[in-house]
Amino acid sequence: MSKPPFVDKVDVEARRKAIQAFRERFKALLEQLQRGENPTLILPKRTLANTIYDEKRKLLLLGPEKLRRSLFNLHEAKKFMQTMLMAKIIYEALVNNEYPTIRDLYYRGKHTIVFVDDKGRRREENTWDEQKESDAVLRDIEVFTGMLREEMLILSKEKGKVVGNMRIRSGNDVIDLSKMGHGAWAIEPTPDLIEFIDVDADFVLVVEKDAVFQQLHRYGFWRRYRAILVTSAGQPDRATRRFVRRLNEELGLPVYVLTDADPYGWYIYSVFKIGSITLSYESERLATPKAKFLGVSMTDIFGDPETGKKPYLSEAERKRFIIKAKDADIKRAEELYNYKWFQTRKWRKEIEIFLQKKSKLEIEAVASKGLKFLADKYIPEKIETGDFID
Amino acid sequence: MSKPPFVDKVDVEARRKAIQAFRERFKALLEQLQRGENPTLILPKRTLANTIYDEKRKLLLLGPEKLRRSLFNLHEAKKFMQTMLMAKIIYEALVNNEYPTIRDLYYRGKHTIVFVDDKGRRREENTWDEQKESDAVLRDIEVFTGMLREEMLILSKEKGKVVGNMRIRSGNDVIDLSKMGHGAWAIEPTPDLIEFIDVDADFVLVVEKDAVFQQLHRYGFWRRYRAILVTSAGQPDRATRRFVRRLNEELGLPVYVLTDADPYGWYIYSVFKIGSITLSYESERLATPKAKFLGVSMTDIFGDPETGKKPYLSEAERKRFIIKAKDADIKRAEELYNYKWFQTRKWRKEIEIFLQKKSKLEIEAVASKGLKFLADKYIPEKIETGDFID
Repeated sequence: MSKPPFVDKVDVEARRKAIQAFRERFKALLEQLQRGENPTLILPKRTLANTIYDEKRKLLLLGPEKLRRSLFNLHEAKKFMQTMLMAKIIYEALVNNEYPTIRDLYYRGKHTIVFVDDKGRRREENTWDEQKESDAVLRDIEVFTGMLREEMLILSKEKGKVVGNMRIRSGNDVIDLSKMGHGAWAIEPTPDLIEFIDVDADFVLVVEKDAVFQQLHRYGFWRRYRAILVTSAGQPDRATRRFVRRLNEELGLPVYVLTDADPYGWYIYSVFKIGSITLSYESERLATPKAKFLGVSMTDIFGDPETGKKPYLSEAERKRFIIKAKDADIKRAEELYNYKWFQTRKWRKEIEIFLQKKSKLEIEAVASKGLKFLADKYIPEKIETGDFID
Repeated sequence: MSKPPFVDKVDVEARRKAIQAFRERFKALLEQLQRGENPTLILPKRTLANTIYDEKRKLLLLGPEKLRRSLFNLHEAKKFMQTMLMAKIIYEALVNNEYPTIRDLYYRGKHTIVFVDDKGRRREENTWDEQKESDAVLRDIEVFTGMLREEMLILSKEKGKVVGNMRIRSGNDVIDLSKMGHGAWAIEPTPDLIEFIDVDADFVLVVEKDAVFQQLHRYGFWRRYRAILVTSAGQPDRATRRFVRRLNEELGLPVYVLTDADPYGWYIYSVFKIGSITLSYESERLATPKAKFLGVSMTDIFGDPETGKKPYLSEAERKRFIIKAKDADIKRAEELYNYKWFQTRKWRKEIEIFLQKKSKLEIEAVASKGLKFLADKYIPEKIETGDFID
């Protein structure tokens, strides 16, 4: 029942590059060993203290601090060996045409080492116990090699989707993203391997909620307003973030993000824009510093006496649609208020209104005023009049 | 910046049909009113007591019990009016070319009715407070009209994806599901509107986990083994279930489901196969009674002395990969053991081994033995030798 293996030229080339990068990057260790030295890795520290917000580039980045990991050092030996084990597993997967996931990297490396200690006692030590341990080691490999795990052909689950007037090449196929019918193209887990062929659009609209994406897509929003429509289906995964960044950087398309009006929505926006703290070392390639927060904003709900902006909701609609903020929402808002990247005039106003009104609103409430209202008035009007937060 | 509205012929026709069905179904009420009678809805009871497992058809179905809802009956009036309100909102959305989601149906209907009671007091009553109330009313409308909400062009978020050698028509587009590159086609929220054009495949493989779907897709599994590859990305949504059912029923393709070896995985399989208790009224169209549980099974892990089956895992691999079952897993397994549709010889054995060994296993553990092992040995061998549970 089987056919010969399928050859994906893009992946063959990606493997070749990753293997080469691995060999070059780890060569220094071999040389240390040949010289009889204690093999030592030096890599940037991925700690909160070494995470810096670059105000000019508007990105979370790793600072200058480095850490050392040597084999012949009691405190560093385990971490050193974990790093070598992970590097070996990834390298073997690359040469064996495998596509591991982060979960199976954990399983592949998980075993118990039996040894005799200096007092002659038989002892056991696990390579790692939990996936969060192996994930941290994988991040070290990313930082050390300067490659994203996706470039090592490590796959993961993906939630992002896209439709719009553009053609891309993925694997061996040319895909027309304007011909997805009522469905969408599920973004591939290795978005750096996508080739943009041509595009005929004016901007990118990223929608937090998949259901709202479905509505706007079905309504033909992206055709009418020349948009590339993307959904992250909640908190964005890496592939969606990288894809959006590439649309912005390489195609020069402005990116607008549409979320619920609550601290969770603001955080989703900030992950797209400046990166997440855990993955700050990757903001450089995953974040889109020019992404704009289109809404739903507090001034959309309540208006803004300062600028004379009228609210999009009537008093009666506010009464129907507004959800009372929970304590957790308020706590989260207070945290965000203190983040450097939320300390702009517009964001402070946004968060202050939220804290004062203790009110949040879902994007579905706006859609319930009619899809025409959402698609033909709210979104295009806000873009045209520049009513967004940068 | 805008273009004229886009016309989707498939949706135009779907709207026409749904509007017609609505008018026909609700006509009886109008006639009751014209005759001066108390308007009354009669619809099947959606209660657990009226949910029946049909052993012959292997489906969860609604039983024969009906309920009445009249306007002029103190206990039934609110439910009657909620049903009418929901019907009105859906009907208006249909004629206004809207695509509501269940969340915005909730918002559209949510308001406060102010009235004066029989003692002259001013009182307030909300149409509904929580979405679960409006969702239940929507289910009543589905049961009453005999239409799935998808046929009323009500959208929802979707997680399902598919790739394989087949061409379909969705909306105005012909889509070749073998040309999705490294991505996939995200299944549309209204899968009854998909037209199957042609297919060249021998079976459907449904994978619980999106990450494993990505691996098998990238490895070219569906090309080599002539499969249609689907993922539900966890608990399946309605669209994925309906899509899989149509592949089975209309194209005659056998369906195999691959999940983790644990009660959660078994439950996912059973939702595909016989339906869920909440949505039993829809099993008739959403369930795939012929779906087979391919694995990972307890006998794959431990072997089966009774049949002489050898395990796929060595003793050492079991030690590395097995996860100890939690109390919640065991409780869930005991519940499933009592469900009628798990009372077959093979399922009893499966659950008994689980309860005895208190062990579960993720599909990623099998993948960590090598994608070649998973794709070229484990899956095809089990299908070829009929090593699955029906």
